[in-house]
Amino acid sequence: MEVKLATSYGFCFGVKRAIEIAQKHHNSATMGPLIHNTKEIQRLQKDYNVGLYQNLDEVKKDETVIIRTHGIPKNDLQILKSKDAKVINATCPFVTTPQQIVKKMSSEGYSILIFGDETHPEVKGVKSYAQDDIHVVLEPNELQNISFKYDKIATVAQTTRKKEKYLQIVNELILKNKEVRVFNTICDATFENQDAARELSNEVDIMIVIGGKNSSNTKQLLTIAQENCKDSYLIEDETEIEPNWFLNKKLCGVTAGASTPDWIIQKVVTQIQQY
Amino acid sequence: MEVKLATSYGFCFGVKRAIEIAQKHHNSATMGPLIHNTKEIQRLQKDYNVGLYQNLDEVKKDETVIIRTHGIPKNDLQILKSKDAKVINATCPFVTTPQQIVKKMSSEGYSILIFGDETHPEVKGVKSYAQDDIHVVLEPNELQNISFKYDKIATVAQTTRKKEKYLQIVNELILKNKEVRVFNTICDATFENQDAARELSNEVDIMIVIGGKNSSNTKQLLTIAQENCKDSYLIEDETEIEPNWFLNKKLCGVTAGASTPDWIIQKVVTQIQQY
Repeated sequence: MEVKLATSYGFCFGVKRAIEIAQKHHNSATMGPLIHNTKEIQRLQKDYNVGLYQNLDEVKKDETVIIRTHGIPKNDLQILKSKDAKVINATCPFVTTPQQIVKKMSSEGYSILIFGDETHPEVKGVKSYAQDDIHVVLEPNELQNISFKYDKIATVAQTTRKKEKYLQIVNELILKNKEVRVFNTICDATFENQDAARELSNEVDIMIVIGGKNSSNTKQLLTIAQENCKDSYLIEDETEIEPNWFLNKKLCGVTAGASTPDWIIQKVVTQIQQY
Repeated sequence: MEVKLATSYGFCFGVKRAIEIAQKHHNSATMGPLIHNTKEIQRLQKDYNVGLYQNLDEVKKDETVIIRTHGIPKNDLQILKSKDAKVINATCPFVTTPQQIVKKMSSEGYSILIFGDETHPEVKGVKSYAQDDIHVVLEPNELQNISFKYDKIATVAQTTRKKEKYLQIVNELILKNKEVRVFNTICDATFENQDAARELSNEVDIMIVIGGKNSSNTKQLLTIAQENCKDSYLIEDETEIEPNWFLNKKLCGVTAGASTPDWIIQKVVTQIQQY
């Protein structure tokens, strides 16, 4: 069976970078889960002795602590530094950008609006960089409940949010404020995976989507694949493959959700190639 | 006949202000037409000896020159000052704002986009304040032909443009640029007249709309009035009123286009009240 990978799949740039950083720091620990994938975190623990702290109190003097891809709040970073821990920053550069924008705009007298999920670690981190008036919304109608302190608004978005919704929110802001400074901090990675899955599913006989069965971005990939290729299957790893799927098929497309590590993808591809 | 004026009609704040300035400066001249209304300019000439120059060459030393509501290009202003003319600025403050924004943003390294009509005096003036990369568009699809020099864009709008179209243009910019600094410089005056005409036409027996028969904003007022009140008429002045319009009517609503002076409106109202 011939296998063709989507032109874009699996881990994004920031996740890959964080894992490379962790692998270079044996016997360290991450502050919160490095990425949102339990199997990969277990592998780092087993192969590189990279531990996982949930709480700042667990960090000891002179220890090496890796900041997770989503970043951490500014105060937490200061506490880590005050403990004389060796801090290694694996925050995705696309997340550092909104942190720095919020810090600068806030110091220049702008009210800040973040488009994102207030409970997400990334948003908690970005929000912590404001020194003054800061607000978080997920929906345009939430703006009704906000009274901004200043008439100049600066706005950033959580990196994984949809652009269409961000524009709706920004448009509301523009209609009601004299100056709106819009920073497009949305990362294209998720949408690149979706576009690539759409394209690949058009040219293959069967599509395999690898990822968590309750991962929303993986399920979205399956839905997209099924639109063009009715023989599309979602699996978590190579143990779930059924050989009869491949009967009378010539070309198999493969893609993977944003939380699927390459080593799982590689095992799947090797197995399919044997049919 | 009882007459009720719309809560907002006729000249906007900037036009009223410019006329007051002109009336305080007998024997002066305006640089270009002070406002877009010939009858009113003739009145200023006749009653206040306020002349009209079309060309900078016509201005003589020590003369008093009034800058029109739409503003003039920066270079023209410098030439006027170099002639030792006494310059009186009747530029609408809502037009001075985008001029100053463009000047500041341009000096801070932003590419500038103006949403407006490149041939309109206001836009010519605003545009002249950029020291570098500046572009003007009327439609979102014109953005395709623009390559901005910088990845930071600042944008302003001609004061009389529609907000919906401005948002379309801004949204395109946001999708393609890291930072878009949006200044909402659109003035509500035109839309306030329209909203007030809509409201008033609901409660009267007859509507009189005063303004130029080829003025687009006046024709828009008539269309809005006719939606609620079938007996709506467009007149340029009191000589066009027909008494039989008012037979069996009790309440007459009156509104006026943005280029209609109060003295014409007053003559119309006085005449209607006599029926």
